[in-house]
Amino acid sequence: MDTAPPLSPTDRSTVRRGAKRARTDRADLHAVLDAGLVGHLGVVLDGAPVVLPTGYGRRDDTLYLHGSTGAATLRAAATGGPVCFTVTHLDGVVYARSAFHHSVNYRCAVVHGTARTVEDPQEKLLGLETLTEHLAPGSWTATRPPDRRELAATVVLALDLTEASVKIRTGPPGDDERDVPAAGDPDPVWAGVLPISTVLGEPQPCPLLPPGTAAPSRVTGRVLSPPG
Amino acid sequence: MDTAPPLSPTDRSTVRRGAKRARTDRADLHAVLDAGLVGHLGVVLDGAPVVLPTGYGRRDDTLYLHGSTGAATLRAAATGGPVCFTVTHLDGVVYARSAFHHSVNYRCAVVHGTARTVEDPQEKLLGLETLTEHLAPGSWTATRPPDRRELAATVVLALDLTEASVKIRTGPPGDDERDVPAAGDPDPVWAGVLPISTVLGEPQPCPLLPPGTAAPSRVTGRVLSPPG
Repeated sequence: MDTAPPLSPTDRSTVRRGAKRARTDRADLHAVLDAGLVGHLGVVLDGAPVVLPTGYGRRDDTLYLHGSTGAATLRAAATGGPVCFTVTHLDGVVYARSAFHHSVNYRCAVVHGTARTVEDPQEKLLGLETLTEHLAPGSWTATRPPDRRELAATVVLALDLTEASVKIRTGPPGDDERDVPAAGDPDPVWAGVLPISTVLGEPQPCPLLPPGTAAPSRVTGRVLSPPG
Repeated sequence: MDTAPPLSPTDRSTVRRGAKRARTDRADLHAVLDAGLVGHLGVVLDGAPVVLPTGYGRRDDTLYLHGSTGAATLRAAATGGPVCFTVTHLDGVVYARSAFHHSVNYRCAVVHGTARTVEDPQEKLLGLETLTEHLAPGSWTATRPPDRRELAATVVLALDLTEASVKIRTGPPGDDERDVPAAGDPDPVWAGVLPISTVLGEPQPCPLLPPGTAAPSRVTGRVLSPPG
C-alpha cells in the first residue's frame, strides 16, 4: 500500500496543458517510474539544455541515477545545477477523425529538482544496487560487485521525488462532435487506438559462455510492468 | 540513397563518452529519428531544464515539432531559446558478469539547436502533414484537415538537423577478462542480452464508430521501423 502524501505540485510541476490528464496520486508517479528502464535527464550546459537517456532506479521517494565521472551532463547535475528527469511510456497511437485530434496514449512522469551526489559509501552501494536491480532484477547478487576502481569511476546521484508531475492519456480520440458522422453514414472515417507495447524477446547468450549454458530464471522469467 | 553530408559534430554534439558507439553517417541519424514516434524536447525555463515528450516528423534535414500555443515549453522554444531534442530506442538489457558492466543496447539521436517558428501558411501545413503522417501514416488525407481556429491554436517549429549526434550500442556485454571464467567452469554466471522491442496490438475502434466498421489498411497494415 502506498501511504505517501499526494503530489503537491509547485508552480513548475503544475500540469497546465491537458490538466484533465494530470494525476495527483503518488502511487501513479511510482508506477510510471517503476515501469520504465531508461529516462531522459535534462541539464543546462553553457545556457543550453542537454537531454540524454539515463538509467535509474527508485527507492521509496528517492530516484538514483548514475553515470561516468567523465560525462558532462552527470557532472552538471552533480555540481548542483537544476535537473529535470522524465520517464515516458508510449501506449498507443490515437487515430481521430480530424488531423488536429490525432494524439497518443501515454504515461509520463516529470521530476524537477537538484540532484545530490551520493558520497556515503554505504548509500553509494545501495544506490548502485537499486539501479542494477531496476535494470536487471537479480543481477546484484548474481554478479561480481563493483570494486574500488569501478566505484571511483561512477557518480551516483540522488534525486528527491518531491517536485514531480504525472500525466496519463488513455482511451479513444476526443473528436469534435461535428466530425462524428450520424448513424447510417456508409463510409465513416475510422477512428480508434492502435495499442503499442514493449515486449521482451528470447535471451541471446554471450558468445563467451560455454555452449548450452541455460539462462537463469531471473532472465527467462522476467516480466515488464504492465500499464498501471 | 542518402547523399547528405556526414554529421559534422560541433563541440557539444561530439560524443565523448563511449566514442566507439558514435555514428557519423547522416543516414544513421535519419534512421533513428524515423523509427521513433515520440522524442524528448528540452528547453530552459527560468534557468532550469524542462524535458517533455513531444511528437515530431522529419522532412529531409528538418525536424518539425508542434504543440499548443499555451504550452510553456513550446513557447520557450518558439521564442528562440536553445533546445535539445532526443529520440531514444531501447533495444535490450545487457546482462554482464559484473554489476559495473551491465548496460543497455540502444539507439539514440540528439539534436541541438534553435527552433524556428513556422509562420508561412504553406510550410505550416506541410509541417503538420509531416507530423501527422509520421504519427499515423495515411491519416492526413483520410481525415479532416485543420481549420483556421485549429491552425491558430497550434505552434509548428522547425529544427535543423545540422548539429546532431547518434549513439548506438549493440551486441553482447563488454566484460572484463578477469570476470570471464575459464572453459570448464561448472557454474558460469549467465551473460548476454535480453532483447526489447516495441510492437503494435489489435486496433481498438472508437466507441462512436458504427459497429462492424473495419479498420483501414493504413492502420491494420502498419509496421514499425525495425532497428537499423
